[in-house]
Amino acid sequence: MPKRLSIGRYLLDQLHRHGVEHVFGVPGDYVLAFYDLIEKSPIDCIGTTREDSAGFAADAYARVRGLGAVCVTYCVGGLNVTNPVAGAYAEKSPVIVISGAPGLKEREHNPLLHHRVRGFATQREIFSRITVASTSLEDPVTAYHEIDRVIHAVERYKRPGYIELPRDMLDVVHPHVHRDRSLQEETDAAALAECIAEATAMLNESRHPVILAGVEVHRFGLQDALIELVDKMQAPVAATIMGKSVISETHPLYLGVYEGAVGQTAVQKAVESADCVLALGCFMSDINLGVYTANLAPSRTISATSEKTSIRRHSFENVPFRSFFKALLKARLRRRRKPRMPKPEPTKGSSPRDGDRITMRTLYPMLNSFLTDDMVVISDVGDCLFGAVDLTIHRRTEFLSPAYYTSMGFGVPAAVGAQVANRSLRPLVLVGDGAFQMTGLELSTVVRLGLNPVVVVLNNHGYSTERMIMDGPFNDILGWNFSKVPDVLGSGWGFVARTVGDVRKALEASLANRDSFSLIEVDLDPRDVSPALARLGERLGKQVKGPPK
Amino acid sequence: MPKRLSIGRYLLDQLHRHGVEHVFGVPGDYVLAFYDLIEKSPIDCIGTTREDSAGFAADAYARVRGLGAVCVTYCVGGLNVTNPVAGAYAEKSPVIVISGAPGLKEREHNPLLHHRVRGFATQREIFSRITVASTSLEDPVTAYHEIDRVIHAVERYKRPGYIELPRDMLDVVHPHVHRDRSLQEETDAAALAECIAEATAMLNESRHPVILAGVEVHRFGLQDALIELVDKMQAPVAATIMGKSVISETHPLYLGVYEGAVGQTAVQKAVESADCVLALGCFMSDINLGVYTANLAPSRTISATSEKTSIRRHSFENVPFRSFFKALLKARLRRRRKPRMPKPEPTKGSSPRDGDRITMRTLYPMLNSFLTDDMVVISDVGDCLFGAVDLTIHRRTEFLSPAYYTSMGFGVPAAVGAQVANRSLRPLVLVGDGAFQMTGLELSTVVRLGLNPVVVVLNNHGYSTERMIMDGPFNDILGWNFSKVPDVLGSGWGFVARTVGDVRKALEASLANRDSFSLIEVDLDPRDVSPALARLGERLGKQVKGPPK
Repeated sequence: MPKRLSIGRYLLDQLHRHGVEHVFGVPGDYVLAFYDLIEKSPIDCIGTTREDSAGFAADAYARVRGLGAVCVTYCVGGLNVTNPVAGAYAEKSPVIVISGAPGLKEREHNPLLHHRVRGFATQREIFSRITVASTSLEDPVTAYHEIDRVIHAVERYKRPGYIELPRDMLDVVHPHVHRDRSLQEETDAAALAECIAEATAMLNESRHPVILAGVEVHRFGLQDALIELVDKMQAPVAATIMGKSVISETHPLYLGVYEGAVGQTAVQKAVESADCVLALGCFMSDINLGVYTANLAPSRTISATSEKTSIRRHSFENVPFRSFFKALLKARLRRRRKPRMPKPEPTKGSSPRDGDRITMRTLYPMLNSFLTDDMVVISDVGDCLFGAVDLTIHRRTEFLSPAYYTSMGFGVPAAVGAQVANRSLRPLVLVGDGAFQMTGLELSTVVRLGLNPVVVVLNNHGYSTERMIMDGPFNDILGWNFSKVPDVLGSGWGFVARTVGDVRKALEASLANRDSFSLIEVDLDPRDVSPALARLGERLGKQVKGPPK
Repeated sequence: MPKRLSIGRYLLDQLHRHGVEHVFGVPGDYVLAFYDLIEKSPIDCIGTTREDSAGFAADAYARVRGLGAVCVTYCVGGLNVTNPVAGAYAEKSPVIVISGAPGLKEREHNPLLHHRVRGFATQREIFSRITVASTSLEDPVTAYHEIDRVIHAVERYKRPGYIELPRDMLDVVHPHVHRDRSLQEETDAAALAECIAEATAMLNESRHPVILAGVEVHRFGLQDALIELVDKMQAPVAATIMGKSVISETHPLYLGVYEGAVGQTAVQKAVESADCVLALGCFMSDINLGVYTANLAPSRTISATSEKTSIRRHSFENVPFRSFFKALLKARLRRRRKPRMPKPEPTKGSSPRDGDRITMRTLYPMLNSFLTDDMVVISDVGDCLFGAVDLTIHRRTEFLSPAYYTSMGFGVPAAVGAQVANRSLRPLVLVGDGAFQMTGLELSTVVRLGLNPVVVVLNNHGYSTERMIMDGPFNDILGWNFSKVPDVLGSGWGFVARTVGDVRKALEASLANRDSFSLIEVDLDPRDVSPALARLGERLGKQVKGPPK
């Protein structure tokens, strides 16, 4: 029997069925009635100070929970989430954008309604460029099916979708039948068999294969399958920076993050000397590949992602990532003897004393020693991200960062999304001074919700990553008294740390403070950069006007 | 003889020739080399904390100076200015967006370069929807001409344009010839003559005509022509809210702001009882028309804008706004006797005492008495904008607001743009607590540049405009200690004002403080709204689910 839900109710029902319990956003008049409907539903509204923060929060929520949603008003709201949504598209985070819009009746005679830019379709046209599926619910006959179609595409491709809701369609009811669409992708069984046979032979012939695990292992929920595969093959496994934490970094076969010459030398050596690399769900992006310092010869590479599965230089049609992964687990893979693992590089220099000036080199080992099992590390963009390569994440899926799209300002809003997604996770946010100035005041929402992230502001006094490439006065920013932010927000603890001892005490106090956020400004020398950034800057500097002509 | 400038140098040269002396933005690696080039040019870089702030600042700069520019990096920068650029499009502000992009050489083999979303053209496609002209300078043969074409279109239509600069094209030199394109629009002389004859007859036959002046009078620099016309016709003149301050509000024939039932009754009566309304450069948008409470019968209306010139119910092709305006000035218009002007409405209630709680009703007359000739009033969106209707602006073009597109967060960044555009203007910013939480920390740039705006935060504890329409917990926001913001920024004066006396003292101290910004938090009762908002909320409340079906 067909159900009789209004279009607005159906949308909320479907989101909830797919695991969405919180929606992030800022209300506005074209979406107010929908906000009212959310209030009356089992889904909670999480208001942020700005829409782009809501976008980043929904992205982090999606990374932790599998699906996220952001709800905004027309144009002045929607156009403020294009950047976070583009980032979610680039990094495969399944976020659904719901935007209010003028009612269809209001649009008659084409009036100049407030918030309108060009035509009524302008916003939808823009989002069609940065989502896998987009729709405007203008026809009751198709609206229910359209909602299903967008959610289905978002779940299948792990990329954002867009649903526009003219405000006078919210309460419209039309008979509808919901058919659960299967999320199975089409698999060509013969092609899969051929592909698996070839991959198995190549792996079995190899003497020392290495697995390279990427972010899609996380997006498609294959972390357990990965451990199974690693244990079955007894092959060492490295992660890309985007895939960092898809496997517990304390796993005995874990090598570390592979990032070409930018990452640790031992990891680079182990991966690049392997006679077969099994790359699973890895984006072959420039940052992931250490700005092209990576040396992964196609002739010894098997690579499977949701977009392409290939062995050496040929690829297979209709061999989806998940099917490939599961079939490989069942394949007759040769079990090897436990490989010899490279020893971790010893920390250079003597152990720092409390009175020493804090440096990037001494900070990260200290952070490492403070990491607990209930923490999720969220890194913003900049040297904090390069330094984060050396953090040891205990459990899986506990490192979030925009390491490919690299949009500054992700960190603090993402902490809101991650902790709302899982209240038992405590975020440790690593953020530079420049990125904090972009979105750090989203701590306002942290206070409203009673969350308790520890925010470490790495204050290197300007845009340091850019200074490495090309310096000029445009890389200077105002020095803020970051530790006074709690005074503005009326909650939270603030610290300024200049020495090793300051950092230690601030970290201890922050961990003990479970009732509010803690903000630790780590005052670094402007010339102090992580070893990884020093190497990266050298490479990027050569490319600032493009590669040599 | 053809010149020999590189593409990057030519772009800067042309911007400078057209009056751009400052470019707003945030640097990033794809645009760093261009930033370096700006440093070496006569144009100054103004770095903001976020790209959207740079967009709002460039918009305000364009409103004050006639052309503005924002310079950002690829996607993570560009996609953060879609909202301010859409606002500039909707409100006809000539802003040029310059975006860095990956070099053409880097794009070979279609790699996953950082910041890339979908295809390399994604960002340009998005901007093509919200600009009048867009280009990517990928071919040296056409690049110079393309720069001219975009700047020309921006100047002609007073709307944004988009120029994308692949970083390896910056230093490319190709012979080029610059031809100054005339900004003359095509005018059909016969149609103009017919139109002017009809308009003249209609105006001369009318017994009590009224002029309604809109924002395009400002955009096309016709303020002097307007005064000439008003004096010649001896007709009373009202302004739309977007056109507020296109004529000095102390002009003897000035009626006030016409905004239907939302504005003052005397102005509504004067305009709606006129037997002929000459609407010049008015956007007929919902907010401008008092959310459709306006009653302007087409049968007695002459309307000219850059998009359409019409008399009663018929319109004329190729009769551009400027041509119409200039021809009308030369027409034989009957000079009338000085009309009787309605008396300004008396302020209700007795004059407030120092100990009284401050209210919206008492605040605005106080602000009025503090306005000086060197001030530019910048209103953000919300009740501050409705209340601002009653401010008396002394000189022309000294009221800036996003009154049609109504994007929150315009105020503080716009103050940066306006004061950079004209250092002798001192901004008085009116901003609500919600809008301040979006972009108020852009005061950081105010401090860096040594600017001295007076920022009045109207703290009514939540999204009050929305509360009027539909209330719920989604309209609640965190209460900030706004007056502590100077502590975070290390500069500026902060005040909290709860009484009439507090406001008076804070305003006096702020005006005396010429060395830094001043921030006055005016603590209002959450239920206290301006009379205009009370009327508007009532109207919008009925429309929240669309007009009655």
